Amino acid sequence: MRLASDPFERDRLRVVLVSPRNPLNIGAAARAMSNFGFSGLRLVNPYEVAFREARSAVGAAALLAKAREFASVADAVADCAMVVGATAVGHRELHHPLRRLEYGGRLIRKRLAAGNVALLFGSEKFGLSNDDLSHCHWLVRIPTREEHGSMNLGQSVAVCLYELIRSPQALLREPKPSQGATGEDAERLTGMLRDALEESGYLNPRTAASSMNKLRRLVRRMDLSARDAEAWLGMVRQILWKLGRK
Amino acid sequence: MRLASDPFERDRLRVVLVSPRNPLNIGAAARAMSNFGFSGLRLVNPYEVAFREARSAVGAAALLAKAREFASVADAVADCAMVVGATAVGHRELHHPLRRLEYGGRLIRKRLAAGNVALLFGSEKFGLSNDDLSHCHWLVRIPTREEHGSMNLGQSVAVCLYELIRSPQALLREPKPSQGATGEDAERLTGMLRDALEESGYLNPRTAASSMNKLRRLVRRMDLSARDAEAWLGMVRQILWKLGRK
Repeated sequence: MRLASDPFERDRLRVVLVSPRNPLNIGAAARAMSNFGFSGLRLVNPYEVAFREARSAVGAAALLAKAREFASVADAVADCAMVVGATAVGHRELHHPLRRLEYGGRLIRKRLAAGNVALLFGSEKFGLSNDDLSHCHWLVRIPTREEHGSMNLGQSVAVCLYELIRSPQALLREPKPSQGATGEDAERLTGMLRDALEESGYLNPRTAASSMNKLRRLVRRMDLSARDAEAWLGMVRQILWKLGRK
Repeated sequence: MRLASDPFERDRLRVVLVSPRNPLNIGAAARAMSNFGFSGLRLVNPYEVAFREARSAVGAAALLAKAREFASVADAVADCAMVVGATAVGHRELHHPLRRLEYGGRLIRKRLAAGNVALLFGSEKFGLSNDDLSHCHWLVRIPTREEHGSMNLGQSVAVCLYELIRSPQALLREPKPSQGATGEDAERLTGMLRDALEESGYLNPRTAASSMNKLRRLVRRMDLSARDAEAWLGMVRQILWKLGRK
C-alpha cells in the first residue's frame, strides 16, 4: 500500500513477532498495523492457542488472516535487506549499534524506499534472545525511562509504527483558522456590554471612558470567530432587553 | 518529575480516561505513562470492577495507586488551563479545532511549560461524548488511516505520550561510531585473503593485479570496525595455516 505523499512503500515493512504468547498482544499489534497502514505481519514460533485466539480479535481480522507463520527468525527475515530489533535494553551487553527511535525510524524509512525491512519484537516475557539479536543489523530503542523501560508489546509496536508514519511536515501546518469577527462586530459587542453593565450598575459613570477601554481590550482578547461574535451579540442583546424591561 | 533536558514538567499533564470499561486498558495506559515518565492519571466514572482489577496489574502499580477518581469531566479538569480531547474523528460534526498529533503535541508541550494540561480519552466503545468534548479547547488526532481510524485505548495513550517526550534533537545525533579498522589492518586482511584464494586455486595468477584491486575494494566496503578486523584476520590466518598443511 502506498498512501498519498508516502515516501516509502508500507508493504515492504515486515513486523516480526518472535514467540508471542498473548493473543491480546498479537491482536493489538495487528490493530496498530492496520491503523497505520502496514500489512506484513509475521510470527515466529507463536504459541498456537494465542495465534488462533488473536485471529478472532476485532479490528484487524483481514490483516491477521494474511499473517504468515515461520519456524525461525532466519526464515522470517529471509527476504529482508535490513533487520532491526526493538529492545528495551539495559540488562544485556549489546553487540549492536543502538539507535533511539527518532533516529532509527528515519533510517528504516530510507531503507524501505529501496527494499524490505524487518522490525523484530521479542516475546512479552523475555524480549529478543541473543540468538534472535544475531540476525539484526542494529537495534532500535523507544526512549522510555531507565527506571521503567520495558513496554507492553502492543504498545511498542504502535509507537514504532507511529514514528514511521509521523509527518514532520504536519508540524508546519497550522489548521485553517476560522473566520475572525470583524472590528465592527467587536465594537458593537463592546458597546452592548457597556450598556448592560451600566444598566445593571456595574460601571461607574465617572470612570466610563477608562472602563470602555478596558472593556474593549477584554473583548479583543476573546479573539472571537465570526460565528461566536454573532452568538455573543445575541446573548447580550437579550440580556439588555430584559434589563430595560425592569 | 522533570527529566534532564525536559522543557516542561511532566507532572503537569493529567491523562484523563473518561468512563473506561476494560481493566487491561486502564493498566496499559498507566504502564505507558510510567514508561514515559508521566504520573497524573485521572479516571472519570470508571467501571468500578475494571479500576479494581487494573490496580493489581503489573508494571505501574505505584502510578495506579495514586490515580484519582472523579465523578465528572468538569471536576477532573478543574485545575487545568488547557483541555485537549483525543479523537479518531470522522463520524461527528466537529465544533473544535482539530490538530494532528505532531502539531498538537507541540502546543501541549508549550502549555505544560506554564500550567496544567488535561488530555482526555473517551471510553473504548463510544469515545468522547459531545458532553465530554464541550470541556475541550481543541482536539488532537493520531494520524491513523481513514479506513481504520479507531485505535485501542492503551495504544493511543502510548502514542500520544511518545509524541510529547519525543526529542527532535535525537534526530541529529548519530550514535558514537565504533572505532574503525586502520588502513594497515585492511591491507593485511586483503593480502591474507589473496594468499588464501591463490592457495585454494580461486585466483588466476595471470590476472592477479586486477584481482588484488577488486579484493581491496571488497574489503574496504566491509567498513570494518577495529574489533571485527581482528576477528577476520584471525579466521583467515587459521584457514591459511590449514591450506598450507595440505
